[in-house]
Amino acid sequence: MAAWRLTLSVCVCVSLCVSEVRGGSYVSAKMNQTIHSLLRRYKTQEVFNGKPVFPRPFMTGKTETKMVLMGGVLQTYDTLIGRMLDRLPTSSPDVQQSESAVASDAVALGSSSMRNELTYIRGKIQELKNIHFKEQEKLLQRLQDLGQIQMDNQVIQHKALWELLPLYEEASELSNSVMMRRRRRRQTKGLKLPYP
Amino acid sequence: MAAWRLTLSVCVCVSLCVSEVRGGSYVSAKMNQTIHSLLRRYKTQEVFNGKPVFPRPFMTGKTETKMVLMGGVLQTYDTLIGRMLDRLPTSSPDVQQSESAVASDAVALGSSSMRNELTYIRGKIQELKNIHFKEQEKLLQRLQDLGQIQMDNQVIQHKALWELLPLYEEASELSNSVMMRRRRRRQTKGLKLPYP
Repeated sequence: MAAWRLTLSVCVCVSLCVSEVRGGSYVSAKMNQTIHSLLRRYKTQEVFNGKPVFPRPFMTGKTETKMVLMGGVLQTYDTLIGRMLDRLPTSSPDVQQSESAVASDAVALGSSSMRNELTYIRGKIQELKNIHFKEQEKLLQRLQDLGQIQMDNQVIQHKALWELLPLYEEASELSNSVMMRRRRRRQTKGLKLPYP
Repeated sequence: MAAWRLTLSVCVCVSLCVSEVRGGSYVSAKMNQTIHSLLRRYKTQEVFNGKPVFPRPFMTGKTETKMVLMGGVLQTYDTLIGRMLDRLPTSSPDVQQSESAVASDAVALGSSSMRNELTYIRGKIQELKNIHFKEQEKLLQRLQDLGQIQMDNQVIQHKALWELLPLYEEASELSNSVMMRRRRRRQTKGLKLPYP
């Protein structure tokens, strides 16, 4: 078990160092250091069981698809770090005035430092999301709205039935136009081939 | 109230007729009739309050975005009609052997007919979805998986922190490549402009 942890720690450190020294990296030195610091605090190797939250390879397919999915990942991280911040203990005046004031101060200090680190990482994620994944965010919001529809509500079911035909028509038209576009592209490629 | 219902019914009938007679329609006559029949059975004008389930205009933006969103709509309809089918009463032998056998038979017949109609409509939706929205379905599944992540689970939170840096790097690279592609397109367009 100890050997496994050691191997894992080495792997993760190598991975982090590679990401740190790699040319053209988008991860700043400060971001790298902050993640290192948080990982040390959380001692996450204790909980690693070989099943990642985001299994790799994470994405294949078209760039547009990748962008939507990556927008979803950034949104997930935003919420998740928000929840981590919520879990951090807050320093209250009552606690500081008690007998264990020194110990409480140390806890409060550590917690405050972690809060700053998590807030910084969350800020970097939000920055990337808000600048480069704006369109994807809108789409994800629309999809989340669809997920909120009360499927078991009879009124909703009947209303959706009223709305079906124009939506079915629109979906068919859309898929047909995509199909035609692909066909035209294939034909254009075919025309470009040299004659034997 | 009666006038409002009448106006609404007329509007919906006109809308359905337009969709029926429109040239190049993807909605078959049988599909149109089945929806008409279901709407008559459900008496849906009773529940119409001016707030549609899928507000119009439903979509704007790029074709890829529209395809993903429409894939989500079709998925929603698939589940929703599945729930409607679950709500239909089933004919059990015990009920048919009771004194009110004739009345029960009539209910069972009506229910069976509605089941056939709903199953037919659901089949049309699944057909369109499975043939033309296969890629979008995969993406939606991946997004739904993201939505299933237990955000409040401390183990998940820590593991996600381990995985953040390579994902952040990938997201930055991806958005940068999209930006560069757009820039190249703009430059190409600029070059094509005639000189003054």
